Amino acid sequence: MTRNTHVAADTDPPAITAILARFVSTHPGRGWNDAVEREAVRTFYNWLGCAIGAARHPAADAALAALQMLEPAPQAAVLGRSERLDMASAALLNGITSHTFDFDDTHLKTIIHPAAPVASAILALAEQRGASGRALLDALVIGIDVACRIGNAMYPEHYDRGWHITGSTGMLGAAAGCARLLGLDTQQTGMALGIAASQPIGLREQFGTMTKPFHPGAAARAGMLSALLASKGFTASARALEAPRGFVQVVSNKRAWHEVSDALGERFEISFNTYKPFACGIVIHPGIDACVQLRAQGVQPQQVERIELRVHPLVLELTGKKTPRDGLEAKFSVYHGCAVGLIFGRAGEAEFRDEIVNRADVMALRGKVHATVDDSIDEAAADVTAVLRDGRSLHVRIGHAIGSLQRPLDDAQLDDKFMSLVEPVLGRAKGTRIGQECRALATLADMRALTALCVP
Amino acid sequence: MTRNTHVAADTDPPAITAILARFVSTHPGRGWNDAVEREAVRTFYNWLGCAIGAARHPAADAALAALQMLEPAPQAAVLGRSERLDMASAALLNGITSHTFDFDDTHLKTIIHPAAPVASAILALAEQRGASGRALLDALVIGIDVACRIGNAMYPEHYDRGWHITGSTGMLGAAAGCARLLGLDTQQTGMALGIAASQPIGLREQFGTMTKPFHPGAAARAGMLSALLASKGFTASARALEAPRGFVQVVSNKRAWHEVSDALGERFEISFNTYKPFACGIVIHPGIDACVQLRAQGVQPQQVERIELRVHPLVLELTGKKTPRDGLEAKFSVYHGCAVGLIFGRAGEAEFRDEIVNRADVMALRGKVHATVDDSIDEAAADVTAVLRDGRSLHVRIGHAIGSLQRPLDDAQLDDKFMSLVEPVLGRAKGTRIGQECRALATLADMRALTALCVP
Repeated sequence: MTRNTHVAADTDPPAITAILARFVSTHPGRGWNDAVEREAVRTFYNWLGCAIGAARHPAADAALAALQMLEPAPQAAVLGRSERLDMASAALLNGITSHTFDFDDTHLKTIIHPAAPVASAILALAEQRGASGRALLDALVIGIDVACRIGNAMYPEHYDRGWHITGSTGMLGAAAGCARLLGLDTQQTGMALGIAASQPIGLREQFGTMTKPFHPGAAARAGMLSALLASKGFTASARALEAPRGFVQVVSNKRAWHEVSDALGERFEISFNTYKPFACGIVIHPGIDACVQLRAQGVQPQQVERIELRVHPLVLELTGKKTPRDGLEAKFSVYHGCAVGLIFGRAGEAEFRDEIVNRADVMALRGKVHATVDDSIDEAAADVTAVLRDGRSLHVRIGHAIGSLQRPLDDAQLDDKFMSLVEPVLGRAKGTRIGQECRALATLADMRALTALCVP
Repeated sequence: MTRNTHVAADTDPPAITAILARFVSTHPGRGWNDAVEREAVRTFYNWLGCAIGAARHPAADAALAALQMLEPAPQAAVLGRSERLDMASAALLNGITSHTFDFDDTHLKTIIHPAAPVASAILALAEQRGASGRALLDALVIGIDVACRIGNAMYPEHYDRGWHITGSTGMLGAAAGCARLLGLDTQQTGMALGIAASQPIGLREQFGTMTKPFHPGAAARAGMLSALLASKGFTASARALEAPRGFVQVVSNKRAWHEVSDALGERFEISFNTYKPFACGIVIHPGIDACVQLRAQGVQPQQVERIELRVHPLVLELTGKKTPRDGLEAKFSVYHGCAVGLIFGRAGEAEFRDEIVNRADVMALRGKVHATVDDSIDEAAADVTAVLRDGRSLHVRIGHAIGSLQRPLDDAQLDDKFMSLVEPVLGRAKGTRIGQECRALATLADMRALTALCVP
């Protein structure tokens, strides 16, 4: 081991902290086209459903019990629950729940789940301040742009190294969003980003534990606190992101600085956000999609002799669990995903409950799925053939699964997903009303009108 | 830039998370000799003085104003101030103040300032719970051992890369200390360490700004919250510290695993803790010490033609600011340190006040200091020659500065330092009483008797 295995410092990086601070503090409100605006509303709506849906998860219970030891003031809502917390703790809690089901949004270029850290921070702050829906949407677009652009500059090296990139860029997105909501000037916004830069959160080793969703929650809280500190005159390096011993160079050997500034204020990374139709790892989605389509073509489980699945090698490497024992394991089983896709025509959070995983017909069909790897098949694709008892074969090839950038969920599908998450927690009537408020978010005068609906 | 500039993963590391969890949760209370116990009391006493001394610093004002936006419950004292905060916020605030003057303790093997993150967390928790002084000392020794052992395993590569190692190991020390105070079992302690592992805090780029002392404060808070979460059943990877995508491997290419377990429970890293006589970066101390000695030999500022300073390259790299504009910058100026050493014969916090930094005679003498690097000189050493106007030269070579392990501050010197910090904030009588309580810390029934003294 020598002292200098890290790659050489870039001693002349562009001033990205200042560039981003200027963008965050001065870009006009609603300074983007209708497509960007639409994606902002969809991003928020999808995130809100995920947070409410996981409100009663044991991870939420444990985190809430710990935070209550601090006797927090009731400043902001815990989505889907009646307890209230100070706004920083609410950001942490809602950040945890929104990522708990692994069902939230994905910026596919970086595998960042950008809403969890950003929306969790700005919603709690907006509620405490009585900010408008317009102000929230502006903060969301801008905060997500900051997190994802920093991600673009470092991905994949930063992720390959072991950072859970959602939390290790999310504190910057949260700081940017909160700085925007607080109306900080360019100098203070730079300080907020600087303070946040010292607090990257998240290791990939934590995948499969409660600490995975803790990452975006902690990032939300860290970003919010950074903005609050900056608003009171707390100082940081004005080059905290780019300096040789600043954030990017310390946590990544890839430093594609231009990704931060290229078309800044013109191209918005939220445009590339996607929403999962299935509550599991993204590599299983093409296989599930194919099975859902086979069902739509009339294939019934009892007719099936076997399902032949051909996938990219990564799919079995990540999700090759043949006999999952519970819901958590089932999320890493392409076999389970295909079985529920064919039986139920869907693979939402409900289809990964323990009782479904251990139901006889699901186990039986899972056993009939035969997966083989095929290097010629793309990661985003799947090739599925249902061989029936009567000798017939039905074949479906998926190039890009539903939920991808190429085949995004439409608004009706997003509504279905939202309701599937919210109804079990808050009931159908409330879910419908929340959906209506979300569609009119840009004109909502006070976010508290929405958060008041999001609790039992 | 290729994908894999990071060094290869160590796929078979020892189970250091479990090893440390077992140590933290099962090592006997007061399970060390008198020398270790004495250093624990000195560490706490020195830390307490630093925290009280900086209670009115603008960094404390700004942080307090931000935290008050969360309307915190009055669970724990802000040392040196009348405001009270919830225990996590108090840990953050006291962590900031105790490191604000750069006057706190140093584990020289790693340049970790271990008390700031650990003591800040455990004191706030101990106060809220009414824990005893014995329990606090046990948590302090054990928490510092965890942080410094992890530091030993990664230093210097981790630090060279740009991490402020005090904050990026401190969250582990704080988690360990809080887990111990909470009486967590081995399994839960492992979870606490695991949750903390995802939250390393601190970039060296922040040196010279308020975010530098923010690092140990944020580490204290993160560590405490990790322990609280673990106590409520929150989960993390049981291999969070050592796994290929766990903490050590993600943030360091040096992984000297044996440093974690060698003589664990027999050798205590707090034994190697040191206390600064000068209120600035440790690498400047040999130069200041030399100048103080030159003054003692009769050299007067107005006689000086120039001061020739030869130092290890790291000294100028870290503290090469030739013309500091304020007290904070002066702490990173070996030139200023030498100047005040010669003029005042000391370099306490008072000698780094803005008005001293901008005093004409100080500025003039600073301009006469000429520093050159010399690879043959140790980091701990300095070679200083005062060339006088009358042609005489006086030479002092420092092998180890006052305050080093080789020349530690004695108890009387530590008392003087403590009083110099506490008297301006709380007055001499209270300072004396606090000192008495600290000397009897091991027998104190309830830490609240001490924290009640530490406020105006």
